[in-house]
Amino acid sequence: MVTRKEVAQLAGVSEATVSRVFNGIGPMKEDTRQRVLAAANALNYHPNAIAQSFARRRSGNLGVVLPYVPKVHLFSTYYFSEVLSGIGSAVREKGYDLLLIFREQNDSGDYNDIFRSQKVDGCVILGATDTPRDRRQLKQLEEAGHPFCLVNQHFAGERFNEVDADHAGGSYQAVKHLLKKGYTRIAFLNGSPEFSNSADRKRGYTQAMSEVGIDPQRLQQLYYEGNYSRTSGQRAAAAMHRQLSEIDAVFAANDRMAIGLMQGLRELGFIAGRDLAIVGYDDSDAARVTDPPLTTVAVPFYEMGRLAAEHLLNQIIDDAEPGGFRIKLDTQLVIRDSCRTAG
Amino acid sequence: MVTRKEVAQLAGVSEATVSRVFNGIGPMKEDTRQRVLAAANALNYHPNAIAQSFARRRSGNLGVVLPYVPKVHLFSTYYFSEVLSGIGSAVREKGYDLLLIFREQNDSGDYNDIFRSQKVDGCVILGATDTPRDRRQLKQLEEAGHPFCLVNQHFAGERFNEVDADHAGGSYQAVKHLLKKGYTRIAFLNGSPEFSNSADRKRGYTQAMSEVGIDPQRLQQLYYEGNYSRTSGQRAAAAMHRQLSEIDAVFAANDRMAIGLMQGLRELGFIAGRDLAIVGYDDSDAARVTDPPLTTVAVPFYEMGRLAAEHLLNQIIDDAEPGGFRIKLDTQLVIRDSCRTAG
Repeated sequence: MVTRKEVAQLAGVSEATVSRVFNGIGPMKEDTRQRVLAAANALNYHPNAIAQSFARRRSGNLGVVLPYVPKVHLFSTYYFSEVLSGIGSAVREKGYDLLLIFREQNDSGDYNDIFRSQKVDGCVILGATDTPRDRRQLKQLEEAGHPFCLVNQHFAGERFNEVDADHAGGSYQAVKHLLKKGYTRIAFLNGSPEFSNSADRKRGYTQAMSEVGIDPQRLQQLYYEGNYSRTSGQRAAAAMHRQLSEIDAVFAANDRMAIGLMQGLRELGFIAGRDLAIVGYDDSDAARVTDPPLTTVAVPFYEMGRLAAEHLLNQIIDDAEPGGFRIKLDTQLVIRDSCRTAG
Repeated sequence: MVTRKEVAQLAGVSEATVSRVFNGIGPMKEDTRQRVLAAANALNYHPNAIAQSFARRRSGNLGVVLPYVPKVHLFSTYYFSEVLSGIGSAVREKGYDLLLIFREQNDSGDYNDIFRSQKVDGCVILGATDTPRDRRQLKQLEEAGHPFCLVNQHFAGERFNEVDADHAGGSYQAVKHLLKKGYTRIAFLNGSPEFSNSADRKRGYTQAMSEVGIDPQRLQQLYYEGNYSRTSGQRAAAAMHRQLSEIDAVFAANDRMAIGLMQGLRELGFIAGRDLAIVGYDDSDAARVTDPPLTTVAVPFYEMGRLAAEHLLNQIIDDAEPGGFRIKLDTQLVIRDSCRTAG
């Protein structure tokens, strides 16, 4: 079986260029195209027949919709940077380019505008929230037949393409770990409730706590909410400080908040891992280098981005009906030093 | 003076939408366009007359060329993520979208292909190297009259648009700081030599060391080279370990290598900040949370990305002649705990 790589080598072009020729993507110097076709011919290379339907006019761009918040360094957050790296890898593999589209919360535009411009053949949507507005706009996209895929966000009752991770399971594992270590007064610092993954984490936490007989009213007292930023974690430290006699551990819904919390508590004289156990979520780079290193839940964000783009592009290139694939990846507890055995 | 913000408020749209209408960018629902024009009229709003030459057909996309290395999580590196966040902010402000174009080192394509496709009105080029191939391709772009801007890379003798930082000055400051603390046997762990900023840092280091009479031959013995990755820093630890009797401090050309070096040395039983002073470069998020926190040089990467995109888009929107702006921003030493006074 002849591979794309061999064709690329013989033609003296990159594999992406071979893809572009056979998928009919974007403009192409005619002599490059001829060289690739000659090489394919010489090697008797036959790519996926459906993928050859290259008469169709495509932009060769995959859109990625990102929430835009002024002054926030979006690409510096672990979640977005990893997902984008994964998307970038799949897009490159298929010979596509990546169009980033920033969307403000109060923007008058809707998702359909993105397709109206014919700038993209499909899009991966990051940062969508389960609000009536987002749900309505996504339904419209679906009705218009535009290919899209959500990452890390689930809409119950819809058959939107989505790639998600098992956040309920990951949170359950994290809290079980604390319980096994002897902690019972475990506070939960959750993120913004409009994300389905916040609800998932709450479900996992609640299940683990309920299994050891902690009642719902008590769980309510142990519930704190930030917005996934480091600052909101730091702010939570002050609130928790007033209740420290009733808390011996904290499960934070992401590493950023966990790190902010650790810093805030330290300023108040409490050391994570000594005075209070802390478990984060994401397994970001920062979790490895904090003092103490953070016990956390690893989420395969890179892989999620890669799979979302790859499956979506396959749907587009094969001209398949949009919608309907749903992938959920496992998470994994990573044990470090931020929660030793309870005294 | 009426502002764009007021027009946006009256029309019930985002500021970016107002920009899109007045810069003639991209498709637009006719009723939105009419609403903006009516609001502008009611408020007697007159945007920059030149910027109004919106009959011109533009893609409304700013390209960003990124070096593509398989398996590297590009967006997770501090440098790229910050520059991109800055570019994203400027692009959003002007109502543009951002097209990411991945470029492999051995790709047959050249920079002109990007413009041939008419997908972008101009592009910011990241990760260019001072090699004959890159220099020749950039000259071709210039000759074709395509607007582009380099970030963090200088080409001596050319008048390419560029936004750079004072890496020679930053490095000089960092090494002076070590010298003032009493260290004299200061090794230099530089990154890949094909980047102008590597040469800049070497110049700053050499100047500071020469000023205290350390001769060039000795400097050569103190010189190490990685490739800006954490792994390469970790690898350097083994090499330095063999010379530790002759080294009392290390200046690393970025934080990633500094952190890898710290980890590598720790595995060999040497603690940064106690047995050996270490200064990093970049002031990445990670530098704040390492143990000990890293003394480093802050580089305004976000601002560099923002300025590059803003100036380039102004050149495009004003239809000005491309090329010729050169901006160099200051760096700043950030003192933390990784280098105490030499014993």
